[in-house]
Amino acid sequence: MSEMNAASAGYPNAALGDEIVGRINRLATISETPEHLARIFLTREHRAAADLILGWMREAGMHAHLDAIGNVCGRYEGGRPGQPCLMLGSHYDTVRDAGKWDGPLGLITAISCVADLHRRGRRLPFAIEVTGFADEEGVRFASTLLGSRAVAGTFNERVLGVRDEAGISMRDAMIQFGLDPDHIGAAARAPGELLAYVELHIEQGPVLEALNLPVGVVSAIAGATRLAASLTGMAGHAGTVPMLLRRDALAGAAECIVEIEEFCKTDQDGLVGTVGYIHAMPGATNVIPGQVSFTIDIRAPTDAHRKLAVADIVRRIENIAKRRKLALQLDVTHENRTVPCAPWLKAQVADAVAAEGYRVFELPSGAGHDGMAMIDITDVAMLFVRCRGGISHHPDEHVEPADADAGARVLLRLIENFRPRDAAQ
Amino acid sequence: MSEMNAASAGYPNAALGDEIVGRINRLATISETPEHLARIFLTREHRAAADLILGWMREAGMHAHLDAIGNVCGRYEGGRPGQPCLMLGSHYDTVRDAGKWDGPLGLITAISCVADLHRRGRRLPFAIEVTGFADEEGVRFASTLLGSRAVAGTFNERVLGVRDEAGISMRDAMIQFGLDPDHIGAAARAPGELLAYVELHIEQGPVLEALNLPVGVVSAIAGATRLAASLTGMAGHAGTVPMLLRRDALAGAAECIVEIEEFCKTDQDGLVGTVGYIHAMPGATNVIPGQVSFTIDIRAPTDAHRKLAVADIVRRIENIAKRRKLALQLDVTHENRTVPCAPWLKAQVADAVAAEGYRVFELPSGAGHDGMAMIDITDVAMLFVRCRGGISHHPDEHVEPADADAGARVLLRLIENFRPRDAAQ
Repeated sequence: MSEMNAASAGYPNAALGDEIVGRINRLATISETPEHLARIFLTREHRAAADLILGWMREAGMHAHLDAIGNVCGRYEGGRPGQPCLMLGSHYDTVRDAGKWDGPLGLITAISCVADLHRRGRRLPFAIEVTGFADEEGVRFASTLLGSRAVAGTFNERVLGVRDEAGISMRDAMIQFGLDPDHIGAAARAPGELLAYVELHIEQGPVLEALNLPVGVVSAIAGATRLAASLTGMAGHAGTVPMLLRRDALAGAAECIVEIEEFCKTDQDGLVGTVGYIHAMPGATNVIPGQVSFTIDIRAPTDAHRKLAVADIVRRIENIAKRRKLALQLDVTHENRTVPCAPWLKAQVADAVAAEGYRVFELPSGAGHDGMAMIDITDVAMLFVRCRGGISHHPDEHVEPADADAGARVLLRLIENFRPRDAAQ
Repeated sequence: MSEMNAASAGYPNAALGDEIVGRINRLATISETPEHLARIFLTREHRAAADLILGWMREAGMHAHLDAIGNVCGRYEGGRPGQPCLMLGSHYDTVRDAGKWDGPLGLITAISCVADLHRRGRRLPFAIEVTGFADEEGVRFASTLLGSRAVAGTFNERVLGVRDEAGISMRDAMIQFGLDPDHIGAAARAPGELLAYVELHIEQGPVLEALNLPVGVVSAIAGATRLAASLTGMAGHAGTVPMLLRRDALAGAAECIVEIEEFCKTDQDGLVGTVGYIHAMPGATNVIPGQVSFTIDIRAPTDAHRKLAVADIVRRIENIAKRRKLALQLDVTHENRTVPCAPWLKAQVADAVAAEGYRVFELPSGAGHDGMAMIDITDVAMLFVRCRGGISHHPDEHVEPADADAGARVLLRLIENFRPRDAAQ
């Protein structure tokens, strides 16, 4: 109680929630269509959102620019210019028909925290950088974390050749956007420039709500394996090919989907498997589908458990394809190891949570985050903010303003009390 | 045997197969893309194909024009101008990634038969009309038989408001094509103008091949029911929503597809069920699909059997949706009764088959045809030509030139021996 009072007393501008919620709503108006929020990498919406965020960064006293891959980058100098930075951030792209909090909450909260320091004229013994990553969701080029991989210097140049659904390669999309695909390397940061990376994000799950906690300390980001599957049978006329002579690729894919769901449902250790995308060709009402492609996303709390599950699911799909005389192409398109949050940094997040008067609760992240890429150049920690019903990637995604405010207060306290690793140990 | 020799002797220009195959190949070059044959209603390909066919009709001595819905119509007068006609024809639109025979074979064969009469200066005591229907497959506006329905005067004006995948309504597509959507009625024919409608078409099934017969007499066109299904659950993050809390619309749809296949497979009386189209939303790898739409096509040799099967399948889908807490929308989008071929007309087709020296074999059509619409203004019969492996709606669709020639000889004999219903009875 005494700590909570101290917290309230210590930060004259702590009521940041309203500003954050206002900006969340403002950013959500920048969308491919007004009905369904979609802000996709290297589109006009991407550009418009970047310009808006760059303006907010500058208002917050930061030097701000768009980097070589389209990330928005703001820098608030420490006591002396050129000091290494504590990097904060999140992404500002969305899935299709998205919620408005996933990504933007962390980015906007970080900017509001810096704005608060700036209003108070407060400089710290390190710089603060806020990065808004341009592509975390991977909607357009089927490869996630493009923004943070570029910053971490691990961007895979082969993605430049990948084409979106309209047939536009990432290379061409960058050129159209005004970026130079041959200079993505310029976005990469040197490890010595960063002291740590801390991201605030909505939980996207139901745990904090169930425990009645506004914030949670992330223990690790769970790894994920994504596969692209393609089944090829034989197209034919829906009226004339007897059922027993068919090699129906969609019926085969449907059996795979039911099997994946059943396999994951019976797992006792948090395994989840999702088929999110499916395309049947030729796709006419009166034609037996000759080819179907679909994606599979598998996640588990440990790498070992996930790998066993993936092997088992692959075996089951192979058996279905074989029995149905369908040709199977199955490729791992994406594999992320589990990323543990750095103990020294996680401890500072926990201290800030406690100092704001909340119970410290640790939980893993079932969703992937930019920290999965940032781990390659610096230590990573995350703070989760409660969201309603555990819903995300959906228009019903919601955060209470009071919880946004709680998240901002914890992040601000973390920043002000931050000690770099060497000093911390 | 003596009959066969008579047949060969009687028709100096009977070797029509080569001309027909040449034109089939020529027409197949008119496609949306060169790799995959697709000739869709009210596109540039439609227009180019129409112009080519109109030219062939005129070479064959016909007056030819494009009617109010885009059908190509050729008329070869009888002994006296203005006599009622025997109408021949088929469609010249295709599914996507189609074969080149389905539709064009009947249309081109009919033109070649008229050309043969024309070369010989032969006039009959009735007119012959050849109609190339502009849309039988229903690929673009999800409603089939648009061309023949317009001719039969049963075109449903509500289809004009239906939009294609690009959001273009049929009304707008007609205007862009150069047709007047308010005057589709002008395509309708009066019943008194027609003596009968006879269509030659590839079998699209494996029966004639198995019996080693080049042609077959169609007994009836099997009815079909098409449904549009939509399941709505709850979108969510692929990594954070536990399996047991999901309302995954795609997993539900997959269960429906497996169930439909299983139900039809265990039927002993020729029931076939096909899910040819599926769309999952939002359609991202890492998002649990919140909504899925798919089509169902059900056919059976009798109307009673089909109706029972549809009711049973609907009940099963309802149960799946209920158990999974998915909202279900299920609509019949298309229902065709079984269309029997007219006995008096079918007898003349059989006589022509026998006169050409082939065994008369009757079989039902599992596929739908323009006769299903034409029955509303005149009596209908069909002649099937053998195709390889029963394959259709696929690039591997194939007819041997000798079989195309056999079909043409039977059709030509039918025309020359044709007696209108009153005379025939």
